[in-house]
Amino acid sequence: MDFAYDAETEELRGRLLSFMDEHVYPAEPVFAEQAAAGPQWTTPPIVEELKAHARRAGLWNLFLPKVSGLGNAQYAPLAEITGRSPYLAPEALNCAAPDTGNMELLAEFGTASQRERWLEPLLDGTIRSAFCMTEPDVASSDATNIATRITPDGDHYVVDGRKWWSSGAMNPRCEIFIVMGKTDPAGPRHRQQSMILVPRDTPGVEVRRGMTVFGYTDGPHGGHAEVVFEAVRVPKENVIGAEGDGFAIAQARLGPGRIHHCMRLVGMAERGLELMCRRANERVAFGRPIGQHGVVADWIAESRVRIEQARLLVLKTAWLMDTVGNRGAHTEIQAIKIAVPQMAEWVLDKAIQAHGAAGVSQDFPLAQLWTAARTLRLADGPDEVHRSSLARKELGRYPTPQT
Amino acid sequence: MDFAYDAETEELRGRLLSFMDEHVYPAEPVFAEQAAAGPQWTTPPIVEELKAHARRAGLWNLFLPKVSGLGNAQYAPLAEITGRSPYLAPEALNCAAPDTGNMELLAEFGTASQRERWLEPLLDGTIRSAFCMTEPDVASSDATNIATRITPDGDHYVVDGRKWWSSGAMNPRCEIFIVMGKTDPAGPRHRQQSMILVPRDTPGVEVRRGMTVFGYTDGPHGGHAEVVFEAVRVPKENVIGAEGDGFAIAQARLGPGRIHHCMRLVGMAERGLELMCRRANERVAFGRPIGQHGVVADWIAESRVRIEQARLLVLKTAWLMDTVGNRGAHTEIQAIKIAVPQMAEWVLDKAIQAHGAAGVSQDFPLAQLWTAARTLRLADGPDEVHRSSLARKELGRYPTPQT
Amino acid sequence: MDFAYDAETEELRGRLLSFMDEHVYPAEPVFAEQAAAGPQWTTPPIVEELKAHARRAGLWNLFLPKVSGLGNAQYAPLAEITGRSPYLAPEALNCAAPDTGNMELLAEFGTASQRERWLEPLLDGTIRSAFCMTEPDVASSDATNIATRITPDGDHYVVDGRKWWSSGAMNPRCEIFIVMGKTDPAGPRHRQQSMILVPRDTPGVEVRRGMTVFGYTDGPHGGHAEVVFEAVRVPKENVIGAEGDGFAIAQARLGPGRIHHCMRLVGMAERGLELMCRRANERVAFGRPIGQHGVVADWIAESRVRIEQARLLVLKTAWLMDTVGNRGAHTEIQAIKIAVPQMAEWVLDKAIQAHGAAGVSQDFPLAQLWTAARTLRLADGPDEVHRSSLARKELGRYPTPQT
Amino acid sequence: MDFAYDAETEELRGRLLSFMDEHVYPAEPVFAEQAAAGPQWTTPPIVEELKAHARRAGLWNLFLPKVSGLGNAQYAPLAEITGRSPYLAPEALNCAAPDTGNMELLAEFGTASQRERWLEPLLDGTIRSAFCMTEPDVASSDATNIATRITPDGDHYVVDGRKWWSSGAMNPRCEIFIVMGKTDPAGPRHRQQSMILVPRDTPGVEVRRGMTVFGYTDGPHGGHAEVVFEAVRVPKENVIGAEGDGFAIAQARLGPGRIHHCMRLVGMAERGLELMCRRANERVAFGRPIGQHGVVADWIAESRVRIEQARLLVLKTAWLMDTVGNRGAHTEIQAIKIAVPQMAEWVLDKAIQAHGAAGVSQDFPLAQLWTAARTLRLADGPDEVHRSSLARKELGRYPTPQT
Repeated sequence: MDFAYDAETEELRGRLLSFMDEHVYPAEPVFAEQAAAGPQWTTPPIVEELKAHARRAGLWNLFLPKVSGLGNAQYAPLAEITGRSPYLAPEALNCAAPDTGNMELLAEFGTASQRERWLEPLLDGTIRSAFCMTEPDVASSDATNIATRITPDGDHYVVDGRKWWSSGAMNPRCEIFIVMGKTDPAGPRHRQQSMILVPRDTPGVEVRRGMTVFGYTDGPHGGHAEVVFEAVRVPKENVIGAEGDGFAIAQARLGPGRIHHCMRLVGMAERGLELMCRRANERVAFGRPIGQHGVVADWIAESRVRIEQARLLVLKTAWLMDTVGNRGAHTEIQAIKIAVPQMAEWVLDKAIQAHGAAGVSQDFPLAQLWTAARTLRLADGPDEVHRSSLARKELGRYPTPQT
Repeated sequence: MDFAYDAETEELRGRLLSFMDEHVYPAEPVFAEQAAAGPQWTTPPIVEELKAHARRAGLWNLFLPKVSGLGNAQYAPLAEITGRSPYLAPEALNCAAPDTGNMELLAEFGTASQRERWLEPLLDGTIRSAFCMTEPDVASSDATNIATRITPDGDHYVVDGRKWWSSGAMNPRCEIFIVMGKTDPAGPRHRQQSMILVPRDTPGVEVRRGMTVFGYTDGPHGGHAEVVFEAVRVPKENVIGAEGDGFAIAQARLGPGRIHHCMRLVGMAERGLELMCRRANERVAFGRPIGQHGVVADWIAESRVRIEQARLLVLKTAWLMDTVGNRGAHTEIQAIKIAVPQMAEWVLDKAIQAHGAAGVSQDFPLAQLWTAARTLRLADGPDEVHRSSLARKELGRYPTPQT
Repeated sequence: MDFAYDAETEELRGRLLSFMDEHVYPAEPVFAEQAAAGPQWTTPPIVEELKAHARRAGLWNLFLPKVSGLGNAQYAPLAEITGRSPYLAPEALNCAAPDTGNMELLAEFGTASQRERWLEPLLDGTIRSAFCMTEPDVASSDATNIATRITPDGDHYVVDGRKWWSSGAMNPRCEIFIVMGKTDPAGPRHRQQSMILVPRDTPGVEVRRGMTVFGYTDGPHGGHAEVVFEAVRVPKENVIGAEGDGFAIAQARLGPGRIHHCMRLVGMAERGLELMCRRANERVAFGRPIGQHGVVADWIAESRVRIEQARLLVLKTAWLMDTVGNRGAHTEIQAIKIAVPQMAEWVLDKAIQAHGAAGVSQDFPLAQLWTAARTLRLADGPDEVHRSSLARKELGRYPTPQT
Repeated sequence: MDFAYDAETEELRGRLLSFMDEHVYPAEPVFAEQAAAGPQWTTPPIVEELKAHARRAGLWNLFLPKVSGLGNAQYAPLAEITGRSPYLAPEALNCAAPDTGNMELLAEFGTASQRERWLEPLLDGTIRSAFCMTEPDVASSDATNIATRITPDGDHYVVDGRKWWSSGAMNPRCEIFIVMGKTDPAGPRHRQQSMILVPRDTPGVEVRRGMTVFGYTDGPHGGHAEVVFEAVRVPKENVIGAEGDGFAIAQARLGPGRIHHCMRLVGMAERGLELMCRRANERVAFGRPIGQHGVVADWIAESRVRIEQARLLVLKTAWLMDTVGNRGAHTEIQAIKIAVPQMAEWVLDKAIQAHGAAGVSQDFPLAQLWTAARTLRLADGPDEVHRSSLARKELGRYPTPQT
């Protein structure tokens, strides 16, 4: 048993921490200003500058093992650091969702021509992509509910359906949509679905509106789009993997996606705790810094205790993915998906409270970070679905004797 | 002991419930559309229509005992109902914060000429007002921290300071600011402060920016302004009460203000629970409506249990204010200020979770209602200050024997 | 709406409070000593002295409306006071479970001869009784599970089954058992069960052992017995009500029983809070009384807030039982059964923590009070059953439109 | 980073798991029977049998690195397993508190003759020992409060004071007491205290009574004694370390003691979860095993998630103790002392609830396990002291700029 990061990871952590200090944190107010001034749904120019810096610093595409050579357990502490500024750092390193998941998917399941056409520019950071899975009309956590149809028609498929929460898709630079739908609604439960590439400019694709998250549009990150597909024709070679592989590919994509989210959430929680401590040292009420009031101190201790536990579970999960594979780490991936957003939400709530009204405002990142944590109790499957599945597995360890 | 509402209250409840069904709920989507289309910081026109309806229905200025003849225990169940649509109903009835508190304050402490100049148009719903208390640079829950200065200079006062979270003040129709500051920084702890009327158009008043609340600007309600006062001269007769009365007046204003917030929060929680139940009945996952999944059912039961308890404590507090006065109800006012926002936040969080991603979006009122509940754990004194004070009182019931 | 107790209640409260101060609290250490010295499963003699005092003070059988003339809303604040010393005061007033429920049952459903034979001595406090409902082998919260059989045989019934948690039954003075069993296992779901009187000395009755609650035997109160009934013959006239009435009678008995428990729990929580405050004022750590440490103060405030809410819900439920009947108050009875034990458990846990190791020991009543609260999350139906039922009712308010 | 146990640990785990299955679990009912039958405060004979088995199996004194050669990170998973049957397994392996802490202390700070006289028989399992630290009259978490005096008098010390919660001391086989007291009440804060060996049979030692823990006497384990020392004379060579070393030695003793407790608590929680799952599979209510009711399933999932996180933090702490020393792991030791009892308490509470009334009784180990977890929120310093200290450290990372 060894809880130390290896030398390569430590070296990258050092480099990344410097990058955060020198480039990312100073860029935060610039980003906010440019976002307020600029056209909605467009990435502020400072981001391209950050991307150039990150590339030069060798901090580019770290998320993809085939490119970076890093295992999950090595990437985890790096992703955590980017989570301290989650609206800038991941994109600066070309490690932002949903592109990371889409790139992994194309790298794993894409044909050579799919990879050349879409993976290359994504790895290069010149375009963005969207993942069109969730639907407004059904409980999408139950994949058999999916209503979008992908109907074969000669050498084409015709896509019909309505998706929402397609993150990034409001940005016109988001050029490619990966769409999940049913090719065989009467097939076996987990073979009904397929995944298909739909270029944004295909006729019949309508990017209708941006959803808000609490009051945030996430405009500078391309928002969260409702997208309608009406008789959208795409060539058959646009299917990813084979017909009927949709469910399996989605599962394969979501595992790493979930751990990346969790890694970053640990960083968000650390950012929250740091801000809470700074505030607690500086703000005076009733004659003492508020950190000397017992209740605030108690939040700080509890935050540290919760963060440490959550981080370790994320790291162990990453280690399991590296050693026994994503499938072998299935239970642990569910466990972190349950534990980490809840932990981060708690810490950030307390950090907000320690800031008073400033905490809910634009003057600190806390309120928006909180919404990210809160939303991850829902996104990629609500907690309740993961908890129910995890319980079934646990119960299955103790089979009832047959009578 | 009698837990039934009296006949007058029941009659008004009936009338108000009809008004909600006929006018308010149908106006919600219209309001949202007009708000999205219209100029920022401006009240959508539908609100004036609602005000006219409410006036005709005899549902106007119910909050002010001198006008409506209603006690707190009678007004409470009505305010609760308005809380079911808190961004429309209170304003429709001219019962919206912060105007209610400001009108009470003027009715109680204003001179005849102050009342004529400002209270009349407020009661008439033709202007709005702001309460400028909180400051960005200090912990405002500790009134001795207030940094704004109100300096006598001949027959004028000169106001210098920086306030924020002045709700409503971004709207140009918000014509009058009630400003808290120190006239005697060296005086006894609770006699240093005074309150003064500052018309918006006084030279030196700068309404600088709107603060956001978890991404929401509350634009259609006049937002939450940062206001800078720089050498602002107002005549001496603009002081409310006497010099040094500021702290006492603030305390007098905040009691009813807090109970009004709590009344409405009970209604917000009821709205959340209703939406949660409807969703739980309609949305199907894994073969059953989600309300038949044990965990969602558990939220619903717990919500009902929490709401009932919180409502009763609010009603008892209102009854105490009517029977023994605001001062006699001090502990109970603190208790509801602690209990009710927390309860509403919990219920709304679960309602959001039951809605999946839709719950955090603009398609349901839940996310914004949640921010209202969350913010009231901070606004008008953070929970921790109330809890600390309430504990001191409880501990004081058991004096330690002197040795 | 009126939150004040009526004059009769206030007068009785005054009398009872004096009785507590003069007789009950001073008897607590005597009771503990006698219990430690005396034979197990026997009531310490001090209790008979208290009963005599209570009788003289006109504080006897207050729980039974037909005798005391008190409604539930009048009895509730009195029962609360007895809850402050729940191992002495209720029995002193002949208002202790399970006898109260059994007396109500006999008063309501018993024949004249059943009342004369068993109700009279119970009202007189000369014998005790047990209620044999729960069974070790099945989930007894689901009444259709009951395995005990009551088989007609000529002019007798034969009782066979195993019961446990028959409170009080270890005490030989507990002379009569009310047993629930199935007379018609194939009948309609809620008509299968009957209730029957089984005198302790009937052949085939074996009181096997006392169950412990955490480490407590509750010996001085007659413990909680496992009782085996093997071919126990009782005459047909021992059935209570008619054959098949068992489920309905149990429901009728449990409503008032639950509210009595909840009333007393409010008193237990008040006792815990008082002890917590006294300790917090007296015990010094790190240079200050621990009540001046923020976290302990926070517990005290939160305790007060929770107790007030819970008490109001209990009182409202009592008022509903008086005005619309037990059936009309069904939802509220469930609500207090859910809310109050949980509240009391929380308060007592914090009171324990404030006492350090002393809190878990025999030197303070806190640990045992805590077990009473904890157990009531299970007894008379676990929380989960009540919550599930309450949720169903709430969901039923919003019927889904038929398609 | 490597989360796998090393080969030696895995081998020992295998051996220990077999020992549990073959010897410990089957001994549990025997132990209960013997304890019920036998004289109070005496270890049931089955324990000596288990000790003989464990010795033969090479599972003896594993806790002491000098003897077993195991590091903390190797011992942790073994201690966890013993925690599954904490009233038998630790003692069977001669790894039970408080003897372990006392043996460590003697091994580390004892003179050769102290080790020969007391450490040898302790390592041999022929006597037991007590640690007399906590006092009834003061908040013992603040070491400066200690009131016991150790006064030099010629070549002797005279010990005067009152201790309680001296675990194990009710058993006459507990032959040696390690007593903490003040030799220099006017000295520097952390040099006032000394530790001294007091043989049980020294005149003036009175073992007065056993304290109960939620009704449990822990009699078969020697209980928790109140011990009075009145003019107790012991030779000067009985002091451990030097005069004034008491505080430092206590700190050194408590670190490993706390981690051992936490390790075992993880095992207790695992036992609770296993029992909860088995019950959830077997017990049927309302037509389904209760594990198929959503709420119970939710507890199971949450339990798994909490246990995993807590275990990892314990293991990391153990690894830190091995790699950077107890002092370097100070913060983490505090963190587990805060996190783990709370986690175990939560899991065991839910396991109890899933068992209904059986859960609080003697028929399952759950209620007593729960009290162990609950008590560890108090023992060895209440949570609040650890939290306050941990917060101070965290706040210290962000020093406020001097003005």
